[in-house]
Amino acid sequence: MSASTWSLSITDRERLIKAAFEAKEFAYSRYSKFRVGAALLSTDGQIIKGANIENASYGGTICAERTAFVKAVSEGTRSFSALAVVTDVASPLSPCGMCRQVIREFCAQDMPILLVPSDYDSRIAKGEKDGILETSIAELLPHSFGPEELELPREPSA
Amino acid sequence: MSASTWSLSITDRERLIKAAFEAKEFAYSRYSKFRVGAALLSTDGQIIKGANIENASYGGTICAERTAFVKAVSEGTRSFSALAVVTDVASPLSPCGMCRQVIREFCAQDMPILLVPSDYDSRIAKGEKDGILETSIAELLPHSFGPEELELPREPSA
Amino acid sequence: MSASTWSLSITDRERLIKAAFEAKEFAYSRYSKFRVGAALLSTDGQIIKGANIENASYGGTICAERTAFVKAVSEGTRSFSALAVVTDVASPLSPCGMCRQVIREFCAQDMPILLVPSDYDSRIAKGEKDGILETSIAELLPHSFGPEELELPREPSA
Amino acid sequence: MSASTWSLSITDRERLIKAAFEAKEFAYSRYSKFRVGAALLSTDGQIIKGANIENASYGGTICAERTAFVKAVSEGTRSFSALAVVTDVASPLSPCGMCRQVIREFCAQDMPILLVPSDYDSRIAKGEKDGILETSIAELLPHSFGPEELELPREPSA
Ligand SMILES: [Zn+2]
Ligand SMILES: [Zn+2]
Ligand SMILES: [Zn+2]
Ligand SMILES: [Zn+2]
Repeated sequence: MSASTWSLSITDRERLIKAAFEAKEFAYSRYSKFRVGAALLSTDGQIIKGANIENASYGGTICAERTAFVKAVSEGTRSFSALAVVTDVASPLSPCGMCRQVIREFCAQDMPILLVPSDYDSRIAKGEKDGILETSIAELLPHSFGPEELELPREPSA
Repeated sequence: MSASTWSLSITDRERLIKAAFEAKEFAYSRYSKFRVGAALLSTDGQIIKGANIENASYGGTICAERTAFVKAVSEGTRSFSALAVVTDVASPLSPCGMCRQVIREFCAQDMPILLVPSDYDSRIAKGEKDGILETSIAELLPHSFGPEELELPREPSA
Repeated sequence: MSASTWSLSITDRERLIKAAFEAKEFAYSRYSKFRVGAALLSTDGQIIKGANIENASYGGTICAERTAFVKAVSEGTRSFSALAVVTDVASPLSPCGMCRQVIREFCAQDMPILLVPSDYDSRIAKGEKDGILETSIAELLPHSFGPEELELPREPSA
Repeated sequence: MSASTWSLSITDRERLIKAAFEAKEFAYSRYSKFRVGAALLSTDGQIIKGANIENASYGGTICAERTAFVKAVSEGTRSFSALAVVTDVASPLSPCGMCRQVIREFCAQDMPILLVPSDYDSRIAKGEKDGILETSIAELLPHSFGPEELELPREPSA
């Protein structure tokens, strides 16, 4: 499965990455001190930003990626063409498992997911490789189940 | 503790309730078939809408109230003056515990929370009582802990 | 609503409190450094211990109270007569909202919930008041909804 | 990365699978009607069972796999050598993303994870292939982050 069948234009790719960095500024990371920003591109060209919003109960924390998804879906947007995620760490970090499951609910298996290093801008400025890890939910959540699996025939419960 | 010190104007109250109904239309309630809408009024007069966004894993579900909060906070809005919630059930239903904990993170103890019955509009049309249960997080989550409690002095951990 | 109709014997009360302290020793509180212990008394006299088990994703954290409940229920025990909770903080701290919702799923409204201060033992040794805050889910999660509310008649969804 | 370096004996494999089926019997799957059982083998030879414990709030649901982990860890067991999961569906179903993240917290990348079809027993009785999908967290949660990634050097937060 390859992300290359998706036509994410250079322009869209750049504005999506920029939006993920902007999104990170609004993180409410009071407990972890670990800021994350996400940006989601919808198939109709909108960009929806998310940041991690933590909670004193820890378990009530909602990650940047899920924030972006619920923002979009709650405004009627359910069709997406790319996602970008950035943290304050130089190596590209990947969504947590819970976010992968939410991505799985709404996105095609091969939709591009861009994991952006925090020093992306300086890499670009220096003419270096951009350091982005480009992946997909097929890669990040193999053997996944989604809405359709819950409708498979089941043995009768006891 | 009383919500009466808050000056939620009639106009704000009405547009908040209307927004909660509108929000409900975008619920993604594929598993429960139970739609919920929420609307949050920020102290600078914005209205932020949320709907429940469910997930095949059930545990990955995010309620309408939390959707509204992460939308607001991820756009830089952290100060709120009222919340309204509505479902498809005639009796006013209350936020789940997890949402109460998220409300606790960001709202004053006595901020008005309006639990709106699904037949609000027809009640108003008939000149009946509006059926709204007006409450607060002080009432809904007594003896709560928030950010400050995590900073209390602790015994040394083993 | 009063917890006084419950006959929690002195012996059961003491062994429940002791169990909550023991439970705290197994907390996996790598991120918050905040240990919590819980102990649940089943109606058939078993004591089930829980501790908070945190996760690098924060949102994947499961509190001490919920740990105790899923342990019990997954062994076939669904009927409870008391819960005790203790942390490393001297003042009695209360369950988070998510845990209150899980308590609501399985317990009677007036089942005793004992919030135990970390210095309980030294209080007892000194002959002081035990400092326990005794409460119930009726008090901690008023206007709650549970399984039955999800079965209320609903307006047709759009 | 291969699971074959693990010496899961035939005996352990069989008692683990049996335990996962037994665990499923205690599922509290009131909302999804979808039962899941999990069994965890600790390095000291214990078997810990888990079932899915659902909640009226949906988001408060805890899966079978996470139930097994919090049971073990809250009793002082943090080192594991295999996991088995079974549902009521004939095809082997995989843990949700949230559970994968919890597995990641406590298990080696190549620890065997057995996804067992519901008709395993009749397959064995008929002398057919057992239908088990054997995998690992390396495969199920690639590019994952765990405790160590949260300690990477970060750019200063704004
Ligand atoms: Zn996440
Ligand atoms: Zn909720
Ligand atoms: Zn809790
Ligand atoms: Zn799961």
